Amino acid sequence: MPAAKAYSAPSQTSPLQPTTIDRREPKENDVAIEILFCGVCHSDLHYARNEWSDVMETVYPCVPGHEIIGRVTGVGSNVSKFSEGDLVGVGCLVNSDGDCPNCSEGLQQFCPNMVLTYGSPDEHLGGVTYGGYSDSIVVDQEFVLRVPDNLDPAAAAPLLCAGITTYSPLRHWGVGPGKKVGVVGLGGLGHMAVKFAHAMGADVVVFTTSPGKTEDALRLGAGEVVVSRNADEMAKHFGTFDFILDAVSAEHDINPYVMLLKRDGNLTLVGAPEKPLPVAAFPLLFGRRSLSGSLIGGIPETQEMLDFCGEHGITADVEVIPIDKINDAYERMLKSDVKYRFSIDMSSLKSE
Amino acid sequence: MPAAKAYSAPSQTSPLQPTTIDRREPKENDVAIEILFCGVCHSDLHYARNEWSDVMETVYPCVPGHEIIGRVTGVGSNVSKFSEGDLVGVGCLVNSDGDCPNCSEGLQQFCPNMVLTYGSPDEHLGGVTYGGYSDSIVVDQEFVLRVPDNLDPAAAAPLLCAGITTYSPLRHWGVGPGKKVGVVGLGGLGHMAVKFAHAMGADVVVFTTSPGKTEDALRLGAGEVVVSRNADEMAKHFGTFDFILDAVSAEHDINPYVMLLKRDGNLTLVGAPEKPLPVAAFPLLFGRRSLSGSLIGGIPETQEMLDFCGEHGITADVEVIPIDKINDAYERMLKSDVKYRFSIDMSSLKSE
Repeated sequence: MPAAKAYSAPSQTSPLQPTTIDRREPKENDVAIEILFCGVCHSDLHYARNEWSDVMETVYPCVPGHEIIGRVTGVGSNVSKFSEGDLVGVGCLVNSDGDCPNCSEGLQQFCPNMVLTYGSPDEHLGGVTYGGYSDSIVVDQEFVLRVPDNLDPAAAAPLLCAGITTYSPLRHWGVGPGKKVGVVGLGGLGHMAVKFAHAMGADVVVFTTSPGKTEDALRLGAGEVVVSRNADEMAKHFGTFDFILDAVSAEHDINPYVMLLKRDGNLTLVGAPEKPLPVAAFPLLFGRRSLSGSLIGGIPETQEMLDFCGEHGITADVEVIPIDKINDAYERMLKSDVKYRFSIDMSSLKSE
Repeated sequence: MPAAKAYSAPSQTSPLQPTTIDRREPKENDVAIEILFCGVCHSDLHYARNEWSDVMETVYPCVPGHEIIGRVTGVGSNVSKFSEGDLVGVGCLVNSDGDCPNCSEGLQQFCPNMVLTYGSPDEHLGGVTYGGYSDSIVVDQEFVLRVPDNLDPAAAAPLLCAGITTYSPLRHWGVGPGKKVGVVGLGGLGHMAVKFAHAMGADVVVFTTSPGKTEDALRLGAGEVVVSRNADEMAKHFGTFDFILDAVSAEHDINPYVMLLKRDGNLTLVGAPEKPLPVAAFPLLFGRRSLSGSLIGGIPETQEMLDFCGEHGITADVEVIPIDKINDAYERMLKSDVKYRFSIDMSSLKSE
């Protein structure tokens, strides 16, 4: 069994620390990958600290990480899509049942038997799957993505979760030229949504509680920035948006945003506030507006997103860190002290 | 100025009582109508008691009623669509600006300048518009609907509000053969939704808190009735609905219903609970589900609905009352003590 270096949390209250884990021998459909970079997602922190125990109890030791960029180091005998040396990505999923109605439509993210990159039962080795805070991983070829060579690997890593999470709803709700699109919250997800919506040709308005983010929002592709605490500024946009993407995970009032939608406009949540959001019925009724959620994206759409990024030269804005800074990074992430995503340089794991 | 007999509330705390009101002389585009029946909508009560003062302050004396069925008694010189003796209907709207984007699409219910059948400024006579608790009304021909002759006029009256309010979202969200549709709440709106969804060819499931309503729900067209307090019964339907229409105006938890939707399923509210509804994000994210509102319907769709009712022999289940029972009817409506809509026989106004 090949051993891999990794960082794991031994318990809910321990910091992450160096460890060694097993990876399976590549089988006929498998791709073996040397991990170059892994983005740091808020989910990693929730998982490491067992904050989602309601829906998924964390099994310790746990190895987070689902924004993986690496190089192929070997392929199984049935693998035709990839060969050694290819630049590839792995996102939140490493398998699914392949034959449910969702899988048949390429929407593996809704498969009832999907296997998450970390924390799902591991059918090969027992225990649970280990994520990308590691120097290598072995993944079925159907869940490996091609990464365009023109993209900086460190900055491409967050595309595998933050990227697809925002790209998918923008596509699903028809964002394109002539559409007015709002993005609520300029963090890891929000900054990707701004880049994508702008590249798709939409007019992008960023809503933020921090006037200090204005310049950055404009640089990322917004045409306008609205400080959401300013009721007058908000009122100017009443009934004018085709689509609003809400990327805020903290508790917040979404009703003022619903009122900014046009008739038949949609607001999609990609953040998941812990408590239920109070939603007023009247703003939905008057204007036949809708409120939705969206969850990462399927494998075909993730590939489409990466190709789109290649064509448009889109990556995340990242701060590259060595793996031994991961615990600091978690603390800084909690304070939104990152522009806009940490990306772990896995070469730093060699010296651990 | 032609005088009309009517029932009005002189103040927020007074019962409705007989009165005389002015109606305008029919102008060139107007249709004069003798009112035969008027349905009693919950909105009438809210309006008479000024319970919607947040959005629309009631002007007294007020004459409610927007589920109007009558006979044409005269038409203006430009009226080509109607002639004396025609059976016609008037719903919640009597005018709109006609040239906004919503009106251009026949969605007058979203026109920013729509004129409600009661309580909107009356550009002809000053004051506010007076509704259908009256023996006559004069309405622009564009807001008068043809009523198929095979429908019982008393039972057709509620189609003009309860009917179109439920028909419109069922059509908008693609209800038809092969679709599994839920209806939450079996009252004035809900019982119409069941009839429509069944006639459209869908499999209809009624959710109710009252097991006593089961037999009636099946008679109206439901294939199954689920007592929503029974968690086991609810769990059996997890993830199986294409569409759910929620017709409950009282405070209630919608999250268990959201979880019954399939991927990309929609739950539409047509009732308007006073307080914001707590909505959990996770059930929306997992399954890309959506929550919407819907508001009556436009004039073309209202006509389509009436024609559909003519073809399928659909009317409301009504209890016909004389106008002097209207105050009792309001009290009974508050206790849901009606199957399923009161319809006022306006011939009873002659003796007032």
